[in-house]
Amino acid sequence: ILLNSYEDRSSSGCSQVQLGFRYESRDQRFTMYIMQLTNCSALCLPADHKMYVRLAVLPSVQVTCCLFRTRGLLSQDVVVINEVFGMQMSHSALRQKTLRVDICNTSKSGHEECLAGAQISLADVSCSEDRCTKWYNLLNRHYMSELSSK
Amino acid sequence: ILLNSYEDRSSSGCSQVQLGFRYESRDQRFTMYIMQLTNCSALCLPADHKMYVRLAVLPSVQVTCCLFRTRGLLSQDVVVINEVFGMQMSHSALRQKTLRVDICNTSKSGHEECLAGAQISLADVSCSEDRCTKWYNLLNRHYMSELSSK
Repeated sequence: ILLNSYEDRSSSGCSQVQLGFRYESRDQRFTMYIMQLTNCSALCLPADHKMYVRLAVLPSVQVTCCLFRTRGLLSQDVVVINEVFGMQMSHSALRQKTLRVDICNTSKSGHEECLAGAQISLADVSCSEDRCTKWYNLLNRHYMSELSSK
Repeated sequence: ILLNSYEDRSSSGCSQVQLGFRYESRDQRFTMYIMQLTNCSALCLPADHKMYVRLAVLPSVQVTCCLFRTRGLLSQDVVVINEVFGMQMSHSALRQKTLRVDICNTSKSGHEECLAGAQISLADVSCSEDRCTKWYNLLNRHYMSELSSK
């Protein structure tokens, strides 16, 4: 019971990203819609800093070919983004990919820092041409580094 | 066209894990079924080494509470695992969690090394009591570290 209440408390702060996907088989085009973020306070962005969303479709021979970044965004409870990115790829190749979505900011020293992220297997992206939209939980980087020390 | 053929080649080697999930609301129990791995050669496991699957349900106040590991497995093209792990949690808390699934091995120096992983948002785990089974692409660690240097 104690563990449960701890769990509830620790997880109330999960931020989420809403994404949409569409694959058009006619022109072999995969489109990613970055729609909005909620509960951004859980990202612990330093005050007055801007964040942005970075997308990477992996694996890729050259990481730079598959990397996209949104404009800079100020943290609010709900952040509407509505940016669209696309790439051309066969459906069979796409279904072997993983989309990494990270909320990043630029540190004082000018380096890209990841605050939290989601990772989405594209194994079941359908050819239906309808846009499929979903909310994904974002996992804070803190937990990833904690995991690698256990 | 050249890019497309590169993409096809580089992605032929993606390994996958088959997972099942079930949430029983009566006793607030979340069950994870680690079913099988395919295309394990893409994991680049050193010869004669054993690997295992590590699961973590995050965020968690204490990482050790939410961490599970399968038995050791030898790499083959298809590796049948069929191990089951469970934890108790309210449905609302579970829906704020992310499941991190990593294929690990133990290095010569005794440290846990991750070869590849998937990350699954549990935001839409249903209460239907039916087991939901799916294949997920595994992303090699190599690409994660390459990403953080761009």
